Amino acid sequence: MTDRIEDSPLYRIANPRSIAIFGASNKFTAMGTGILSSIKQMGYDGPIYPVHPREETVQGHKAYSSVLDLPETPDLAIIVLPTPVVPEVMEACGQKGIGHAIVVSGGFREVGPEGAALEKQLNEAAARHNMRFLGPNCIGAVNTHFKFNATFLPCDHPPGFIGMASQSGSFITQMFDYLGRYNLGFSTGFSVGNEASVDIVDCLEYLAKCPDTRVIALYIESIRRGREFIDAARKIVPHKPVVAYYVGGTEAGGRAGLSHTGALAGADRVYDGVFRQSGVIRAHSIEEMFDICWCLGTTALPRGNRVVIQTHSGGPGAVAADACARNGLELPSIEDQTREKLAEYIPSTGSMNNPVDLTFTKRNLDYFVDIPNVLLQDNNVDALMVYMMMPRRMVLMVAETTGVSMEEAKTLAAQFISDQSRQLADSMRNAKKPWIGYSYYSAESDFIQKLYEAGAPVLPGPNRAARALGAMHEYGQLREKLSK
Amino acid sequence: MTDRIEDSPLYRIANPRSIAIFGASNKFTAMGTGILSSIKQMGYDGPIYPVHPREETVQGHKAYSSVLDLPETPDLAIIVLPTPVVPEVMEACGQKGIGHAIVVSGGFREVGPEGAALEKQLNEAAARHNMRFLGPNCIGAVNTHFKFNATFLPCDHPPGFIGMASQSGSFITQMFDYLGRYNLGFSTGFSVGNEASVDIVDCLEYLAKCPDTRVIALYIESIRRGREFIDAARKIVPHKPVVAYYVGGTEAGGRAGLSHTGALAGADRVYDGVFRQSGVIRAHSIEEMFDICWCLGTTALPRGNRVVIQTHSGGPGAVAADACARNGLELPSIEDQTREKLAEYIPSTGSMNNPVDLTFTKRNLDYFVDIPNVLLQDNNVDALMVYMMMPRRMVLMVAETTGVSMEEAKTLAAQFISDQSRQLADSMRNAKKPWIGYSYYSAESDFIQKLYEAGAPVLPGPNRAARALGAMHEYGQLREKLSK
Repeated sequence: MTDRIEDSPLYRIANPRSIAIFGASNKFTAMGTGILSSIKQMGYDGPIYPVHPREETVQGHKAYSSVLDLPETPDLAIIVLPTPVVPEVMEACGQKGIGHAIVVSGGFREVGPEGAALEKQLNEAAARHNMRFLGPNCIGAVNTHFKFNATFLPCDHPPGFIGMASQSGSFITQMFDYLGRYNLGFSTGFSVGNEASVDIVDCLEYLAKCPDTRVIALYIESIRRGREFIDAARKIVPHKPVVAYYVGGTEAGGRAGLSHTGALAGADRVYDGVFRQSGVIRAHSIEEMFDICWCLGTTALPRGNRVVIQTHSGGPGAVAADACARNGLELPSIEDQTREKLAEYIPSTGSMNNPVDLTFTKRNLDYFVDIPNVLLQDNNVDALMVYMMMPRRMVLMVAETTGVSMEEAKTLAAQFISDQSRQLADSMRNAKKPWIGYSYYSAESDFIQKLYEAGAPVLPGPNRAARALGAMHEYGQLREKLSK
Repeated sequence: MTDRIEDSPLYRIANPRSIAIFGASNKFTAMGTGILSSIKQMGYDGPIYPVHPREETVQGHKAYSSVLDLPETPDLAIIVLPTPVVPEVMEACGQKGIGHAIVVSGGFREVGPEGAALEKQLNEAAARHNMRFLGPNCIGAVNTHFKFNATFLPCDHPPGFIGMASQSGSFITQMFDYLGRYNLGFSTGFSVGNEASVDIVDCLEYLAKCPDTRVIALYIESIRRGREFIDAARKIVPHKPVVAYYVGGTEAGGRAGLSHTGALAGADRVYDGVFRQSGVIRAHSIEEMFDICWCLGTTALPRGNRVVIQTHSGGPGAVAADACARNGLELPSIEDQTREKLAEYIPSTGSMNNPVDLTFTKRNLDYFVDIPNVLLQDNNVDALMVYMMMPRRMVLMVAETTGVSMEEAKTLAAQFISDQSRQLADSMRNAKKPWIGYSYYSAESDFIQKLYEAGAPVLPGPNRAARALGAMHEYGQLREKLSK
């Protein structure tokens, strides 16, 4: 592991000052054209040199018939060409003195012996010129903080804090909208493809040093350099959490991975062992992986596993309690002094057990600020889970009681929801103990949408919230163990 | 179990021809006012008689100071009053000859001995007049096909096919928006509360006979009449699937249920046994329960557990394969004749293994219609899972290649997405084998939103899709066993 991020083989892949692109044209169905569109759309502001055998210009950029004709040596070559020509193009790039490449083209090792032979040629060309490259058979890379999206799909989410390396390009590009839904996003995302030159361990080391990355996510079908993976992760985990989703644990999953990237998977328990030794948190789905990243990146780490649940609805409270128990979390009784403080907020139909169930009958305003703060001060409590919903009608009704017209009530309600969600998100972010929300509502609710926008972790449902909190507790323990 | 739905104690609770409401006023913060608003908003067209001690009119309806003064005997009384007066109001309703009630008020058995005494009085009043009622401590009932929503929250989803009985009112009302997101909805939903008069077994029997209900969902914290539950379910399951989410299986979940509705929960394995004997499918979260209902209500039942996965992205294919394996599903090899038929559609980078991975390189149109149909004809295949996404940019690009302007391309793309999704949803619905979609995209994608609108089951993510398909297979087996 090098010390400076600039020394990583991935640095100029993720932060190129200038690029050459092969395979982009004015033909809109071409993959390379799509990648160039993405690069331009995100606002990349370095020089772009399309290399094209016939076109004068490509998407408004002067095109060159050979890479050797470029007026400067770009930092990065992006290659999206038919497989057989890729090795010779790599050779030409090397001759030009280009140090790094992203090879998007597929048809190499993953398709059999013939492809493997081409991949060998590709490696040899790169080796002759000390080039390092991402891929082949990958979907590119994105660095939202550098305004660089070299993938086929547009990335509309804001610059984020999740650094990801993925053995499937889909789990970079096809997650843009998924993450954007919750106002999350990648800091940097690498699709590693066949890992012929840089692999997931290189990505891990790069992301560890990336200042925009608060948490590292990995999609893994197979780890090729097991020992190096474990060593790298053990050094990183005390400073930055790593969450991995491994898919090859079943026979069917393993077979699918094999025909996807030629990866040889190992049994679940082998990978469980690898992750345990590495200090890596194992997620069991893509969604779970991002849920855990979301919480780790936005709220404090729990010191223990004792959770208090706050709800105004019995069912969602009971479900959360059950989910906590299934995720290694305990539900302590709250302290007597907490009960005393809560007494003024909780009506007779409410419960001061854990879940603390306020029912529906008292002031709405206390629910999101005062009561959570009382609960967080409890010494028996390591973390807070709050059920969140605020039906528009309820807010409208309260607004109307002030004697205003329905039109004014609507304005007041919108203002109220906006103010409350901003305040609430601030409180959640600044709390010294983790405080996460859960809800069955999502973007269709103004309130929840505003909370997402303000950066609050409001997880979709109690099971996902409890699992994420359980994983945070797990990370706390792993970090402590590895820091010794 | 009675034979006619009209004989169910719940019939006039879910289909009242006229109603009296206690506790609705012109004060907007009152729960009863909210319920009356909901009733009106959904378009209930029977007579509504508010009973109020002082008001002349309530929300535009003539109010009566006593139920005894009503000009007719309504089918149903809805009672949302302070706990202590509820028994005497029930008595008055009985004197008026009202046969059914919904008691929303809480503060009965669930709060301790004093409340239990009031609940006993309530029961005695009802018994004196042969009245049956839902609750107390419930949040009402909704029958979308009868335009009757007697709950506190507005229900905007279209009339649906999921009949639900819930020991938490939240899992009726707070699911309206959740289900609506996927264009799903309740046929009828009952919040059973303390089950003093009608219980979850009565609901089960009602929903079994409800012609609008294709699948029954249950949220359970405790079953009070275990024997009756099993007997009823065993008769129903051969004709209509029942899916239950039970939450009391952990100590924490059980304790939460106790303070919620006073329910005494049993261990997980006890309920596993009850569900197995009953032929009820056990879900492990609210979301999973509705996922299973979604698939059961919209696509054919599988004859076996052999699934073929179709994808154009390796990662989402591998994840689906892994998820299938974890849910009791097998991934067979496809037949030689299927391979021959597929050959014309699949490029060299694609795979004819299972997952069938088409990669990105050939015509988009084949993906959603021709290829699924080829796969469904395979004799090794009992069910089809298709990864679904259609990025707008991709469609725009294809449209542009026809030489039209960007403006025209947008119109063409929207039309294309709309046509494709409608055709696709029809094919999915009419297939003789189950065919479900999965995607990480949701309403933010035009294509997925249109698929929801057209009634296609496109589940959020491969894990949820595989679990739902596994549960469908489980139901097929349970049905066969119980039909013997």
